[in-house]
Amino acid sequence: MSAARTSKMTEKEKQILCVGLVCLDIINVVDKFPVEDSDTRCLSQRWQRGGNASNTCTVLSMLGASCGFMGSLAPGHVSDFIYDDIRRYGIDVTNVIVHAESSLPASIVISNISNGLRTILHTNRNLPDVNSEDFRKIDLSLYKWIHWEGRNASEQVAMIQQVEQYNATVPAKHRITTSVEIEKTREELYQLFGHGDVVFVSKDVAGHFGFNSASEAVKGLYNRVKPGAYLICAWAEKGADAMGPDGVFHSDAFPPEKLVDTLGAGDTFIAAILFSLCNGKSIQESLTFGCQIAGRKCGFQGYDGIVQ
Amino acid sequence: MSAARTSKMTEKEKQILCVGLVCLDIINVVDKFPVEDSDTRCLSQRWQRGGNASNTCTVLSMLGASCGFMGSLAPGHVSDFIYDDIRRYGIDVTNVIVHAESSLPASIVISNISNGLRTILHTNRNLPDVNSEDFRKIDLSLYKWIHWEGRNASEQVAMIQQVEQYNATVPAKHRITTSVEIEKTREELYQLFGHGDVVFVSKDVAGHFGFNSASEAVKGLYNRVKPGAYLICAWAEKGADAMGPDGVFHSDAFPPEKLVDTLGAGDTFIAAILFSLCNGKSIQESLTFGCQIAGRKCGFQGYDGIVQ
Repeated sequence: MSAARTSKMTEKEKQILCVGLVCLDIINVVDKFPVEDSDTRCLSQRWQRGGNASNTCTVLSMLGASCGFMGSLAPGHVSDFIYDDIRRYGIDVTNVIVHAESSLPASIVISNISNGLRTILHTNRNLPDVNSEDFRKIDLSLYKWIHWEGRNASEQVAMIQQVEQYNATVPAKHRITTSVEIEKTREELYQLFGHGDVVFVSKDVAGHFGFNSASEAVKGLYNRVKPGAYLICAWAEKGADAMGPDGVFHSDAFPPEKLVDTLGAGDTFIAAILFSLCNGKSIQESLTFGCQIAGRKCGFQGYDGIVQ
Repeated sequence: MSAARTSKMTEKEKQILCVGLVCLDIINVVDKFPVEDSDTRCLSQRWQRGGNASNTCTVLSMLGASCGFMGSLAPGHVSDFIYDDIRRYGIDVTNVIVHAESSLPASIVISNISNGLRTILHTNRNLPDVNSEDFRKIDLSLYKWIHWEGRNASEQVAMIQQVEQYNATVPAKHRITTSVEIEKTREELYQLFGHGDVVFVSKDVAGHFGFNSASEAVKGLYNRVKPGAYLICAWAEKGADAMGPDGVFHSDAFPPEKLVDTLGAGDTFIAAILFSLCNGKSIQESLTFGCQIAGRKCGFQGYDGIVQ
């Protein structure tokens, strides 16, 4: 995009960028977990693009937000599927980095409808994460919000610092809001608490810190976030809580009539909150909207029913 | 291809056509079979085109034979992989039939290197086999040999009868040789014994009929083949036997130093025999060549080491 076009962009036209993982899940639905050395007939098989940041982009796009994905890919048939699917949702792929020397295997999911259990076969990705050098090359003036799925946290902190430096040079209305997701219980990720204007912490991580509810978690972990930031924690069927400089907030969950597919519900929750906050809604409105959309998502397979 | 060009084709330029199945196997190599509800890290993952007729084409092509594949596909990413791979081997795809309304799932293979066991997850293909109406549309003058992987046997018998009718109208040197493979123990397939100038019967089927060796099998089942036909049976590390109007023949196996991958060894055996017979070799020479090439194949993963 030319500088001329960029300078004419309104804040509304600017994108939300999500930085993180994209992958291919091949989901095999069975009614009985296979016994070794047998031939099992699956009830169905579906191919689904996955990865937290990539899923969040899907939902942002369906809600009507202009958004882009930044992450790593390797050439090959898995990437072809991913590219086609990501484009189908109108997600900008300008900042996808292709590593010609790497490979991108599919994750094999065995989904047992008799007990709801998921068994996953991963293969080592051999694919470097986006780093702060890659990030330095992007045109920050195109974005109004940048969200990081916590992975290579030290590099991600360096990226956030680049955004802070950028923000210091532009008028307030052009500043980029930042958010981070701390989903996995890995020590390295916890440095991300201190960065980001909005910090999402998972039930898993909160539990790891000894908290038994979203309310306990946001209160107990709030001392780790930077001044003025919001800390948000979703707790499945118990809804979600947030804490910010203006107090604590809660929304109940909005479960569907029948739980069908919870894969990606957390990514959906984040997307709905980013969308809502970007559109000037309050933290309470956004928290409620996040619970509504995430709850709705659990009522069907995939994402295509999110916009009714 | 124009009629003018066809009429100028020499027998040598004519193709070998293989009719049957093509599929995608996603092979996940583990050192321990997964426990339900766990996340397993695979040692490696590879995507491999499979299906007996399709594998036979691969080996024919690598041996230097001009060949084509006839089978069904459905649109989508699995087919894209298959098409790319089949073209990489220079296999003619003119007679591949695409069923737009169908789906083609991948077969998931969990290959345990600790015990050599393979566990397979199939999904219903929802894809009609090639039938005699499809076959009627092809230009038989392009082929010198047509091989059928036994599947929808009644339809396949009708296809073979079309070839017999064609053969009755052309000079002897232009006649098409036919072969069939009876691999699975399904009653419907056994009608194929009575058709084909060369009949391949698997160790599995021979065992199902109560035979304990390839020699017993070809002698015991020879009354089922048409007059003048050859019946061939491979028996893994015991080699292979053939019986024809001129007697019985045997070749020992040629095992590799280390057994690495037996997937597709039977398809390799068939390809090597077709190649050899097409080049005017005797049944004994061809049987030996089949055992040599199939044995060599078991010494490495896939097919790319067959031509040394």
